[in-house]
Amino acid sequence: MYDAEIHAGWDIGGNANGGYLIALGARAMADAVGRPPVSLTTHFLAPGKSGPCEIDVDVVRVGGRMATVAARLTANGAEVVRLLGTFGEHVPGGPAVTLGAPPELPPTGECVRSKPPFEVGTGFGDRIRAHVRPGDAGFKDGFPTGTPEFAGWFEFDDRQPIDAIGLLLVADAFPPVIFNLHGMPVGSAPTLEMTVHVRAEPAPGPLRCRFGGRFVQDGFFEEDGEIWDVTDRLVAHSRQLALVPRRVP
Amino acid sequence: MYDAEIHAGWDIGGNANGGYLIALGARAMADAVGRPPVSLTTHFLAPGKSGPCEIDVDVVRVGGRMATVAARLTANGAEVVRLLGTFGEHVPGGPAVTLGAPPELPPTGECVRSKPPFEVGTGFGDRIRAHVRPGDAGFKDGFPTGTPEFAGWFEFDDRQPIDAIGLLLVADAFPPVIFNLHGMPVGSAPTLEMTVHVRAEPAPGPLRCRFGGRFVQDGFFEEDGEIWDVTDRLVAHSRQLALVPRRVP
Repeated sequence: MYDAEIHAGWDIGGNANGGYLIALGARAMADAVGRPPVSLTTHFLAPGKSGPCEIDVDVVRVGGRMATVAARLTANGAEVVRLLGTFGEHVPGGPAVTLGAPPELPPTGECVRSKPPFEVGTGFGDRIRAHVRPGDAGFKDGFPTGTPEFAGWFEFDDRQPIDAIGLLLVADAFPPVIFNLHGMPVGSAPTLEMTVHVRAEPAPGPLRCRFGGRFVQDGFFEEDGEIWDVTDRLVAHSRQLALVPRRVP
Repeated sequence: MYDAEIHAGWDIGGNANGGYLIALGARAMADAVGRPPVSLTTHFLAPGKSGPCEIDVDVVRVGGRMATVAARLTANGAEVVRLLGTFGEHVPGGPAVTLGAPPELPPTGECVRSKPPFEVGTGFGDRIRAHVRPGDAGFKDGFPTGTPEFAGWFEFDDRQPIDAIGLLLVADAFPPVIFNLHGMPVGSAPTLEMTVHVRAEPAPGPLRCRFGGRFVQDGFFEEDGEIWDVTDRLVAHSRQLALVPRRVP
């Protein structure tokens, strides 16, 4: 059992960012087995308010190369997230295929810094620098692109280096892709489940990210993310399943 | 706790197919909350030999629409798979976007029925009819396409209807996509983790499936699956992270 804290200032509208909660849980899990995350799935159960929390880590199996770990993060007696992951080291080398490339982005100065679209509780937006490709940012002014995609740069505001656990946060740091669909209410799009595959430790420097969805149906949509480092290497690959915001009646 | 059985005849080379194990665990989880799977993640820990097993189900949270459930499947005292999922009903309607389409496939009679490339223990291949697009099946004779993809039809051999739980099995029923890369040893490509999103209950009839990978690096590859029903509706979306087969020295 780890005593931890959901720090203030990582919230969106008063609730801690989902990626922040994933990273918080993952840090305890990684500590328990002494290995960084390779694949981590998180199910979101309740909003995370700032304050003390407990992380109950269950080491399922420790193998020579990989360890499987489950965890639950509880605050004020309520379970906030449940996690299940594999932790281990990447061993460079072997066959390589890369069908894809980082998004083409103008310099950050020509991009639009993304902040959560709320009047209060924008702490998360101050901690990170998510600079969205200019054309992708018009949704805030009522001009969505019509394509469920966002691309942009990511850095922490204090430029702290991004490790494997930091990547888990990056994977949930951009606006929901459906905000770029026409006629979609911009509101809460709660994530049910998110899985992040860490594919490499990032080289120092800003990351290029692309998030896209292909299927919106029956109130659900998925969001696939690719995160690339400055060496043009894929460092994380993510998918989440989320709920379409409900229309305001 | 559910007493269950890993039935003989669903194996590949003596070990139960991964998708079969996922479906076995999911059936207990779905029973515990009375809802079908929406998102299910499975981590693979040990081979599943045929025989009795126990499924320990932990109902994490039951909400009005969604329930979160964890489970572990144990056989002969060893944990075989650990699962974490969200279960609930799909509510038809709402905004719809479909960026994609089912693979174009010739009739099953012109496709190649896929069987595991082993001399013994091909029970799984007898239980299912996975009919692969002709060009994709040449790898068995030493002629991979060079593209990490397989597309084909799926039915159970006895034509039993495929429900949400059946889809979990379908998502792991085709050969690993890297078998279609040049110079890749055709051997075991163990899955570390697999997540399946059930996006709709399939209409009766054969399913069209496409599995593809884009990133092979540092000994890992991912495999993304799309499963479409006869009404051209996406019914499941999957991703797994697996290990590249080791080269025979």
